[in-house]
Amino acid sequence: MVTAEAPVGIFDSGIGGLTVAHAVMQQLPRESVTYFGDTARVPYGPKSPETVRRYSLEIAAFLVEQQVKTLVVACNTATAHALPLLRERLTIPVIGVIEPGARAAVRATRNGHVGVIGTAGTIKSGAYERALRALEPSLRITARACPLFVPMVEEGWVDHEATRLIAREYLAPLQSEEVDTLVLGCTHYPLLKHVIADVLGPDVTLIDSAEETARETALVLRDQRLTAHNPAGPAHRFIASDDPLMFLQLGQRFLGDAIDGVEVKTLG
Amino acid sequence: MVTAEAPVGIFDSGIGGLTVAHAVMQQLPRESVTYFGDTARVPYGPKSPETVRRYSLEIAAFLVEQQVKTLVVACNTATAHALPLLRERLTIPVIGVIEPGARAAVRATRNGHVGVIGTAGTIKSGAYERALRALEPSLRITARACPLFVPMVEEGWVDHEATRLIAREYLAPLQSEEVDTLVLGCTHYPLLKHVIADVLGPDVTLIDSAEETARETALVLRDQRLTAHNPAGPAHRFIASDDPLMFLQLGQRFLGDAIDGVEVKTLG
Repeated sequence: MVTAEAPVGIFDSGIGGLTVAHAVMQQLPRESVTYFGDTARVPYGPKSPETVRRYSLEIAAFLVEQQVKTLVVACNTATAHALPLLRERLTIPVIGVIEPGARAAVRATRNGHVGVIGTAGTIKSGAYERALRALEPSLRITARACPLFVPMVEEGWVDHEATRLIAREYLAPLQSEEVDTLVLGCTHYPLLKHVIADVLGPDVTLIDSAEETARETALVLRDQRLTAHNPAGPAHRFIASDDPLMFLQLGQRFLGDAIDGVEVKTLG
Repeated sequence: MVTAEAPVGIFDSGIGGLTVAHAVMQQLPRESVTYFGDTARVPYGPKSPETVRRYSLEIAAFLVEQQVKTLVVACNTATAHALPLLRERLTIPVIGVIEPGARAAVRATRNGHVGVIGTAGTIKSGAYERALRALEPSLRITARACPLFVPMVEEGWVDHEATRLIAREYLAPLQSEEVDTLVLGCTHYPLLKHVIADVLGPDVTLIDSAEETARETALVLRDQRLTAHNPAGPAHRFIASDDPLMFLQLGQRFLGDAIDGVEVKTLG
């Protein structure tokens, strides 16, 4: 039996989804979060859709066992491949990371030209383009893979001159094509928001999928009358399928002191 | 029955080992190479030693079926975890990628202070330090992980200003500690040799593990009377466990036209 005081379940192939956890904690400070990062099997991008679906079902089953009241799929690859299946199989609400950002981009654009950046896998999958076109078929979309952004974030170089040079090179085609709205289509990218904003200037609206997904989560909880009160304050849990120390060190780049311990759970 | 005209088998978790294949082709132009890249299961670094041993045995069995006359383990992680087991199980000679570089470094150093750079996994494993100390216990060793070098190479930015900035930051501690010899302890790094040499200057000797491993392979083949003549010229094969097109595109950064097709073989 799911209660309103139960935690919000969030999962990702690794640590990137912590930006979504961070946004949920900021926007919904009374909600407890139970986060699962499948660090033993990261990255999902190069894996087949069947494999990603199997992994996603395993993680969902584990989080349901942990009594989560809703499931946030904070991984672009898992959202692209497994969202319909998870919605079919689970009785709790399931929220993906692609639709909320796509909706916000369609609302934000003035010239009808939206840019999308993400990992090579996400861009190749065309998942954002499909979501955007489903909302607004006349949209012009320019998508670009930025494979070095994730390693730069994981190295902690979010404000390094090298990161700035890389961002300038990746974003130049989006600038010259005059997109006025850019979807940060990877859960790591919110950590580079300042660098990306500096490069693109104030005329380009950045859509932070993590913020939008947290907003969507708030709406879903309200609709389902599942908003927590937790008078004692929230209790967060972080679970990784591999090396908890590495998860903790990287996790603190995303969450600061909000993460002070990591449990381990092996799946598969 | 192994013949001298049989191919040299080389494997890696992905494409990095192609620098070893390249060095073998350059130094031994009559030898045929059969290369296996386990791109479906890359990277090996974060995986447990048992898993890496299991994968290495699977690949070795496959290459032995392909009639290779010797096996080059062109992967630092697989060398660190699986070399003794492979030598025990196989009847053909098995060559690792760590010892040849360590030996060359011990020969090259004048001040007895050797640097090692590699992925986080390789540096954490201490495999180069053990190999170096086994050869020369009095050596001073400074090891440093350079996690961004592999993504920079895979993005093809081997001569980009961002790469130069990253190299300067990674190599600064090695410079200030005055290492006079640096082992490039990752199969991707030979592609950054020019940038690294520019940063460190002419007083630091770079040890290219790929070149040293190819040299070792030549010696082993000569010792075992297995040197090929192949009057018709060599015939190379490249086999990946995932997406042959991506392997081909990345592979051409390492090998140019020497790679013009990729077969697929799923393992495990």
